[in-house]
Amino acid sequence: MQEMGAAARSASRALAVASTATKSAALVAIANALDADREPIKQANAADMAAADDNNVDQPLVDRLFLGDKGIDQMIEGLMQIDALKDPIGEVTDLNYRPTGIQIGKMRVPLGVIGMIYESRPNVTVDAAALCLKAGNACILRGGSEAFSSNQAIAKCVTAGITAAGLPKASVQLVATTDRTAVGELLKLDEFVDVIVPRGGKGLIERVSNETRIPVIKHLDGICHVYIDSEADPNKAVALAFNSKAEKFAVCNAMETLLVHKDIAPTVLPPLAEMLATADVELRGCEKARAIVPMNAASAADWTEEYLGPILAIKVVDDLAVAVDHINQFGSGHTDVIVTENYSHSRAFIQAVDSASVMVNASSQFADGFEYGLGAEVGISTDKLHARGPVGLEGLTSQKYVVYGSGEIRKR
Amino acid sequence: MQEMGAAARSASRALAVASTATKSAALVAIANALDADREPIKQANAADMAAADDNNVDQPLVDRLFLGDKGIDQMIEGLMQIDALKDPIGEVTDLNYRPTGIQIGKMRVPLGVIGMIYESRPNVTVDAAALCLKAGNACILRGGSEAFSSNQAIAKCVTAGITAAGLPKASVQLVATTDRTAVGELLKLDEFVDVIVPRGGKGLIERVSNETRIPVIKHLDGICHVYIDSEADPNKAVALAFNSKAEKFAVCNAMETLLVHKDIAPTVLPPLAEMLATADVELRGCEKARAIVPMNAASAADWTEEYLGPILAIKVVDDLAVAVDHINQFGSGHTDVIVTENYSHSRAFIQAVDSASVMVNASSQFADGFEYGLGAEVGISTDKLHARGPVGLEGLTSQKYVVYGSGEIRKR
Repeated sequence: MQEMGAAARSASRALAVASTATKSAALVAIANALDADREPIKQANAADMAAADDNNVDQPLVDRLFLGDKGIDQMIEGLMQIDALKDPIGEVTDLNYRPTGIQIGKMRVPLGVIGMIYESRPNVTVDAAALCLKAGNACILRGGSEAFSSNQAIAKCVTAGITAAGLPKASVQLVATTDRTAVGELLKLDEFVDVIVPRGGKGLIERVSNETRIPVIKHLDGICHVYIDSEADPNKAVALAFNSKAEKFAVCNAMETLLVHKDIAPTVLPPLAEMLATADVELRGCEKARAIVPMNAASAADWTEEYLGPILAIKVVDDLAVAVDHINQFGSGHTDVIVTENYSHSRAFIQAVDSASVMVNASSQFADGFEYGLGAEVGISTDKLHARGPVGLEGLTSQKYVVYGSGEIRKR
Repeated sequence: MQEMGAAARSASRALAVASTATKSAALVAIANALDADREPIKQANAADMAAADDNNVDQPLVDRLFLGDKGIDQMIEGLMQIDALKDPIGEVTDLNYRPTGIQIGKMRVPLGVIGMIYESRPNVTVDAAALCLKAGNACILRGGSEAFSSNQAIAKCVTAGITAAGLPKASVQLVATTDRTAVGELLKLDEFVDVIVPRGGKGLIERVSNETRIPVIKHLDGICHVYIDSEADPNKAVALAFNSKAEKFAVCNAMETLLVHKDIAPTVLPPLAEMLATADVELRGCEKARAIVPMNAASAADWTEEYLGPILAIKVVDDLAVAVDHINQFGSGHTDVIVTENYSHSRAFIQAVDSASVMVNASSQFADGFEYGLGAEVGISTDKLHARGPVGLEGLTSQKYVVYGSGEIRKR
């Protein structure tokens, strides 16, 4: 593992100065290699699927593990999308002269070496490699043991692509073992790894955060709220609340708690409850909500629960300030929405809610890198430092100061 | 300490939505209070100075502790400078429509609660409070025990200023004890503190980093290099190298290692050695350097030493690539300079050197927040994530996504 770390650091120096054209050539070559290797990839995946079946792996994990031609097409399409994005590296902003005569700006640069730890989905191997590559970073990938053979087959294509473009083989390295201690060793490579990106369940992310001194880009809970304001358009409110909850249940940007202003609750709750019933969503409400629509009673625990399923907590609130306080107190700082036609209310909500994404009159389910125009993402950060919200190319970069002078010296 | 944390979190909500005018009124009121309280502040400082004398505190610490009318003037001037800076909060950038109809941008917002731990200089109490306030953050300040009375007297003025402007008293809280366990307790307030900024010696910063799970904005070593390229202007090179080393020795942006291209070394080393001799700088060189100018021999340890004093390590290198490798391997990623008239060499150096500040033909001693136009700084970060280089107002903020819609729902 130490050797992988040192090799990654060395490769990162070459990647940092690689031209946009070279990085593009690597992405295209990886896509071509995947296209050419469809059969071996599908065979490797079939072996993983069979092993998962033997090991009684949970069905959702097995579902995410499967990789057919459609999945390979999507990986290739993803590579083309990342290739089409603007190269973030080298961009200089805020370049200005100072009274001393020196000129100072900020230049976007790679982070260096990214350690990526992820579960089941084998397509992450390509997505992560491509994002890291485009942002000029070397990466060490540690996929789940259940996708071991699939990841190996995919990594072979990645290696073929990067070496065809003349980039170092160690630009992308897959940890070639299912030994669980490998994760622990990766987390100890402070000297060589600049940031760890865990992608998977809460357990994985907490383990990683606790075991490493390397900075971690975390993707934790999504306890997302929709607040229906007193001055909401009732039709928009019902449609947005329904979509925020029910478009997909098991996603981090799904609404988990609905807050409704007391004046509009009698208007919007009955039709919304009816719609949610068609999607088999269980409602758990405060007393005021239950007085309007019959539903189960919410307990205190419901306000901090990420259901990731067909359950919705509902609370009727007296005003906007109470809604904002509830969100800042019980939310997870992921994505929160106000539905309103009132200009001042929209501004107050945006200003006061302390979350990675704050929305007006839009579904919480828009909160992802692709919808935000980032092209792809490695996760959605609920941290406040560095990357916040969907993390795309920019989150995998840093900025350094560049100073241009003509021989200026400092006099104090 | 728990209570201070909860009060700070609560105050941070009010500060986050405070208007620019209110924050400005607070800064001006603090300045007025300091001006009115000159006598009690000087008396408190005299008590600290006497105690330091009794306790045989090191002379450099005592020097930094002293606060006279000039120091009070500087604190007032610092407040006015921070007041004159643009309010960073609420700035929206990159606001664009997406094909779905939603409009997405990034809004600059406060981090929340800052924990600041610092040594001796009592002026940090005002500087840190003012920067945090302007950036909309609440802060908990833990000054050094040797400045206990001075900090109390200053904090009284800060409290007077913030309350006069109608902001919560807990916007700025000074830990009112010299008990050393207070630092440990502050470091455990994960729930309430968003970031810790230690300002002081390496020991303090390492202790803080090891003891907390709260993100830390670190200010570590400054092992800064100047590389004199084969195509440097010899006069500029000598002047820049001298200034980078000798303008001040005990600063993190002082040059510690000089790298010189072999072709220009015979031209620049003799006059530079002569100038450095006038400042009593001891030279420690590689064999090639010693063949040009008599000096002590450098050992391997000299390439990684932050002298913070009148010693300079000198190495003659074969070319630019060797210089860059040396900097990336032995440097601390703080500030590194190339002196050259060659366009391509300047570009290659800027691209390849992985440091917070990379300079062409300017003194390394320019690397600070004031010279960069940030107004003031809480430190110089050698981290790559979040803030890098001099950390001013922007380093004390975060960005959240704002999404404006007209009722759009997501369809997959």
